[in-house]
Amino acid sequence: MKPIRLTALLADIDSGAVTPQASIAAAREAIDASDEALGAFVRLAPETSLAAALAATGPLRGVPFGVKDIFDTADMATEYGSPLYAGHRPWADAALVAMARRQGATILGKTATTEFAHMRPAATRNPHDLAHTPGGSSSGSAAAVAAGMVAGAFGSQTAGSVIRPAAFCGVAGYKPSFRLLPTVGMKTYAWSLDTAGLFAVGVADVALLTALLTGRNLAVAAVPLGSLRIGLYRSAVDAALTPEMREALATAARLLESAGAVLTDLAEPAALAEAREAQRVVQDFEGALALGHEHRTHRDGLSPALGAALDAGAATTPDAYDAARRRARHGRKAATALFDTVDALLVPSALGAAPRSLETTGDPVMNRLWTLTGNPCVNVPGLTTAAGMPLGVTIVTRFGRDREALAIAAHLEALLDNSPIAKATGPV
Amino acid sequence: MKPIRLTALLADIDSGAVTPQASIAAAREAIDASDEALGAFVRLAPETSLAAALAATGPLRGVPFGVKDIFDTADMATEYGSPLYAGHRPWADAALVAMARRQGATILGKTATTEFAHMRPAATRNPHDLAHTPGGSSSGSAAAVAAGMVAGAFGSQTAGSVIRPAAFCGVAGYKPSFRLLPTVGMKTYAWSLDTAGLFAVGVADVALLTALLTGRNLAVAAVPLGSLRIGLYRSAVDAALTPEMREALATAARLLESAGAVLTDLAEPAALAEAREAQRVVQDFEGALALGHEHRTHRDGLSPALGAALDAGAATTPDAYDAARRRARHGRKAATALFDTVDALLVPSALGAAPRSLETTGDPVMNRLWTLTGNPCVNVPGLTTAAGMPLGVTIVTRFGRDREALAIAAHLEALLDNSPIAKATGPV
Repeated sequence: MKPIRLTALLADIDSGAVTPQASIAAAREAIDASDEALGAFVRLAPETSLAAALAATGPLRGVPFGVKDIFDTADMATEYGSPLYAGHRPWADAALVAMARRQGATILGKTATTEFAHMRPAATRNPHDLAHTPGGSSSGSAAAVAAGMVAGAFGSQTAGSVIRPAAFCGVAGYKPSFRLLPTVGMKTYAWSLDTAGLFAVGVADVALLTALLTGRNLAVAAVPLGSLRIGLYRSAVDAALTPEMREALATAARLLESAGAVLTDLAEPAALAEAREAQRVVQDFEGALALGHEHRTHRDGLSPALGAALDAGAATTPDAYDAARRRARHGRKAATALFDTVDALLVPSALGAAPRSLETTGDPVMNRLWTLTGNPCVNVPGLTTAAGMPLGVTIVTRFGRDREALAIAAHLEALLDNSPIAKATGPV
Repeated sequence: MKPIRLTALLADIDSGAVTPQASIAAAREAIDASDEALGAFVRLAPETSLAAALAATGPLRGVPFGVKDIFDTADMATEYGSPLYAGHRPWADAALVAMARRQGATILGKTATTEFAHMRPAATRNPHDLAHTPGGSSSGSAAAVAAGMVAGAFGSQTAGSVIRPAAFCGVAGYKPSFRLLPTVGMKTYAWSLDTAGLFAVGVADVALLTALLTGRNLAVAAVPLGSLRIGLYRSAVDAALTPEMREALATAARLLESAGAVLTDLAEPAALAEAREAQRVVQDFEGALALGHEHRTHRDGLSPALGAALDAGAATTPDAYDAARRRARHGRKAATALFDTVDALLVPSALGAAPRSLETTGDPVMNRLWTLTGNPCVNVPGLTTAAGMPLGVTIVTRFGRDREALAIAAHLEALLDNSPIAKATGPV
């Protein structure tokens, strides 16, 4: 199960070393060989769709791709991780799915999501150790990329659903600036928070993928680290970090510093601590409206945790919601102000490595704030625990500075890759 | 076809003068009697849904309601005004539809929309003169309220699709602050612009309706006009206003002034003229992505005008879109700054009265800017042309000041109602 690097695959297809047909056939074999154990996919595309994709043109022709089952697909059922939607077949592809098809990507199937991208775990396991969660809610997308089944995949993040599974599975995860990627045709949980994101093996891969999908210039140029100021962001929620995550952060910081970057400790401003708390209120209130039909008429078909979250949202007053939105607005301003003194922040992608459990997808506490503020975040893979489980760190930049986030993350990834102290182990 | 005033209807139901059953029966009779000629509805609700609504509780019990066929309904097909979606049956109600049902409203059916809320006219006619357009894209909702078939209806506005049909049909139309009402389950055209809105007979009715749906305090209190500063907003696009609309604006201004308000001329700042132009770029670019599936795989099923708009959007570069978004952001700041010197703006709701044509829904040029800036807008009915066709003027307030917009609009409506010079004629 060798991960499929998009940059390398496209070079191979371009040179003729690999045909698009062979690339897709190999990916399908990887799924056939391993997905019964891994559970990354909930549904595979019909043959007609695969044939149509290979007959199409576009820069992503021959690229095997996965789509979280929270995005609508016209050629496959879309169940949002809920038994309520068993067999549900949308009329149209989600906007991002249509973009991927337009660029020639082959969508091999739908990847597992937690229930409505909330908390109830999907059946997916972590490719690095099947007893561990892959994280959530974009569980299947992160696992499928890590396990060498696809070169890229779509995910979505309302609290921590892209960055956390990317970290747990040891792949690059990119949560773009809020609304850089369209969420049309993605099942809504909270419209002020829901952010479409991407997974690929490395940072350069996820940057190239996004560039090809959107036509934006996101190529990761070499960043002269000597000119960079990196903030080590410190907040009260750091108290729950595992010792291994603290060490991983220190390693990343040390490597950046030895490459010439200037590192500064930044204590969390009060406005951002308040914004993190506001994220929950916004999520609950909007979730109760967005899933109003399911909540009102199919309460029994929801998991207890989701039912309780929607109850909490429905009990939240418009005044409390408006107060949370004001705190969010102040938080966004405070987040922007952070970048007056630094170019990027280095933050943990999660509290630690993936918990050894399939009953939880882990805690999104390290991600909630940056989802609310909408800043671009890139999970950088390459660090591991002593037991070989991936540990992710995140590069955060100013809103709209996605290219910088990707470039700095790619640089850090290269430093980790070349460092003997931080070698990633491959998946099982 | 006497319009159904929500405030009066709820008082009658409350006092027992009208039963919820009788209210709904009367509305159904009005539809039976007139909708063959008017074409406000494209689909009526099944009996089971009507019975369920009348068996429910809630403050809107017995209130006949219409839902633009751009909002998903689980109990009825939802076709978005496009033959592509013939018979399409969504799994879930749109968030607003679920909110209306939760409050006990009886949704009598789906009202006509232009194709995907874009330009191709629906089959609806103007209840004041069947040879005239009712406006669009929320054609059926405005007409159904004007014709006394429902007490309230949902619409949506991406350029001018709530305010313009409300003006053409002589009813109150309310476009709330951007994202005050959820758009989940509403077919997306442009996610930065799409705004859910409401129609009712009078301003107090639309305010009460929104308050009951959202739990927000929007009751229209008496505004002491002596303390109010009203801006007469003047822009280059005013050159296309009809003489009758100029007169209507002058009448509204004179009445406000004689009631004690201070009126000031406000020339459009350059940033807002640029923002109006940017609205088209944002609409086209996002539309091509939001309708990417339809555009890519069902081009032949789109009207020529929509196909051309999506082609234009697909040909727009991300740089051009980003530049338009920057102009939009500057425009929002400039719009907020307007309210440093005035409490509200008085602007035309359209270039004039409804054109005598069923081939066009009229021009949204007077509405584009305020959709982009997201300010609350309320169409005030009560003025007419010499021939008796409605002319609408709009009250605009600062973002988030929806209650003020509704209160000032209600006051102006009352002034018009009591004025011999501006008597509205009833619908035919």
